[in-house]
Amino acid sequence: MKIETLRWFNNRLEMIDQRILPAAFEYLSYYTAHSVAEGIRSMVVRGAPAIGVAAAYGVALEALRLSQLLPPGRGKVGMGVDSVNDSTPTLTLPLQGGGNGSVDFNAGMETGFTVLAASRPTAVNLFWALQRMRKVWESVATQTPQQVAQRLLAEAHEILAEDIRINKAMGAHGAALLKDGARVLTHCNAGALATAGWGTALGVFRSAVEAGKKISVIADETRPFLQGARLTAWEMVQESIPVTLITDNMAGHLMAHGEIDAVVVGTDRVAANGDVANKIGTYMVAVLAKRHNIPFYVACPLSTIDLNIASGKDIPIEERSVEEVKGFRDYHWAAEGVKIRNPAFDVTPAELVTGLITEKGVVLQPDVQGIRTLMRQ
Amino acid sequence: MKIETLRWFNNRLEMIDQRILPAAFEYLSYYTAHSVAEGIRSMVVRGAPAIGVAAAYGVALEALRLSQLLPPGRGKVGMGVDSVNDSTPTLTLPLQGGGNGSVDFNAGMETGFTVLAASRPTAVNLFWALQRMRKVWESVATQTPQQVAQRLLAEAHEILAEDIRINKAMGAHGAALLKDGARVLTHCNAGALATAGWGTALGVFRSAVEAGKKISVIADETRPFLQGARLTAWEMVQESIPVTLITDNMAGHLMAHGEIDAVVVGTDRVAANGDVANKIGTYMVAVLAKRHNIPFYVACPLSTIDLNIASGKDIPIEERSVEEVKGFRDYHWAAEGVKIRNPAFDVTPAELVTGLITEKGVVLQPDVQGIRTLMRQ
Repeated sequence: MKIETLRWFNNRLEMIDQRILPAAFEYLSYYTAHSVAEGIRSMVVRGAPAIGVAAAYGVALEALRLSQLLPPGRGKVGMGVDSVNDSTPTLTLPLQGGGNGSVDFNAGMETGFTVLAASRPTAVNLFWALQRMRKVWESVATQTPQQVAQRLLAEAHEILAEDIRINKAMGAHGAALLKDGARVLTHCNAGALATAGWGTALGVFRSAVEAGKKISVIADETRPFLQGARLTAWEMVQESIPVTLITDNMAGHLMAHGEIDAVVVGTDRVAANGDVANKIGTYMVAVLAKRHNIPFYVACPLSTIDLNIASGKDIPIEERSVEEVKGFRDYHWAAEGVKIRNPAFDVTPAELVTGLITEKGVVLQPDVQGIRTLMRQ
Repeated sequence: MKIETLRWFNNRLEMIDQRILPAAFEYLSYYTAHSVAEGIRSMVVRGAPAIGVAAAYGVALEALRLSQLLPPGRGKVGMGVDSVNDSTPTLTLPLQGGGNGSVDFNAGMETGFTVLAASRPTAVNLFWALQRMRKVWESVATQTPQQVAQRLLAEAHEILAEDIRINKAMGAHGAALLKDGARVLTHCNAGALATAGWGTALGVFRSAVEAGKKISVIADETRPFLQGARLTAWEMVQESIPVTLITDNMAGHLMAHGEIDAVVVGTDRVAANGDVANKIGTYMVAVLAKRHNIPFYVACPLSTIDLNIASGKDIPIEERSVEEVKGFRDYHWAAEGVKIRNPAFDVTPAELVTGLITEKGVVLQPDVQGIRTLMRQ
């Protein structure tokens, strides 16, 4: 089964609702930047590369929506036209423009960018995609809103297609690192569901299998959102790649018993010095891998590397709602009255990273120099 | 609120049903060794010291039950008497005795011991308590079954009372190790609910607070059975000791941010060389504590030290049902078709243990010599 995490369908963005997987498989439709931002915030879509693609479509959708409110060739009109319906009822776009009831395309677009940028703080691909879309917008600023919208939509399509090409290139580089028969641990879901398809860490597994290697996957369940138990396990079962589920606190026991040969994870942001921000719990796995001399690889498209951030301690770490830790979905088990912490990510220092797997090749023992060299290529 | 995990009430053993805490607080009644064994197996009662106390009562209950089937002074009778009802419907004791329909007190007792010993393999307190009860039984073997039963019941009462005394002694030794204001991580539940009362690790926290220290507790939720989220958080809230709940994969992040000053956990078995078996995930916490130079203490009554086991690798590790990892209780979220592992315990090597807190004092940097010296005192 080919997993299309995001797809353009009937002039709208559709995204698999990852909150209800694997119990149900369902697409939700998106027509505005605001609803896409809410989809990112509420984790309908998650995974840094997928968030980047979703944000790009969010920009394009906003341009399409605003341009449909305007007569061809105009940047500002009265508001006497119907607003396009949005499938997510909680969000409607406040139409921008000097308070006089007119639609201002540029102001509306700026609001769209702002709302998307605020949806999740840690994933750098989000900002990377928004920056790329802004540049395209600027390059066609003299054209009509309708033309701008079409150009932005084409760019979103290209970002999606590129993401899959990049994942397959990473997959090939990463697959070469895995021995035949390797038992590989992964944390969270860096799979097709975290990207436009194929996946970063799970893309490495898919590529290894495609190359004829027998591998088996150990999936941490990844509390509190359970991406490992729900999404990684589901993806691997779909692909018939052998997969074993454990709780997050079992990885050390398995490593101590020689049952794990390598670790491959994804990432939400890599600093200029090679420090890696990824789903909470990644750091623990890296520390354990180091102790047991197990290679720890991070699959990271170049769009995830943030040269503006010197080291991991400058990466903003999102703290999510305490509700997520009380239980799962509406089923709560935690004792009443307890305080709760819910940092969604942690930072793994570069010294614990055996190699960064990128679309341009593998950077072993990543550091400032290695990453600079890679980015210059 | 004084938590009585196990209590003798109306000639039966009552145990708090820890599977349904904190949503409901309820006692279940036990009349036979077989039902107590089932209560241990199904985790109505858990925690090594509490399991030991429960097993002692299981032996006493069995002796009482068998002795009631016999006329005073007889060790064998016909089966024409009613069996005592048992509150747990799935288990009835097959009455022993040469196939001729007679009740054999000794054979019945042996079956009781066997069933109790098979209930959970990792907790050494179980075997310690059974051994102690057997010695008492042997010491009064010439007396009537009724007299034997009364003697065994008295011994079970003594083991319970002793457990609380031991916990308070450990608490005093452990409290001295914690600085005022310390933020202390614990894993699983080594509390009043894991003992006859007061607790081992949580007993240290109670004693520290009683001594006037301000401490705060960070509780790992402890998948899959969630003893931290359900039981430790609940106990600390009852005591008004500040407690913060995290998922098991967040401890590393908090340590890296200087938010944890010490770790105190319980144990199910300590080998002669100081290796510590405890709830799955303890090893990961110990490895992280070592990396961050955070002291890692294990609260362990002497009954938990097993000199017959040379090192941790000889400690049997119970693998529990995969159902526990699929979700929680009847709420399952794991993808269909995934394989699952569920080791219930792991081993922390002695080199990672800063100190063993026992009722006789603290053994720093435990090793064969230190433990031998302690046990000789």
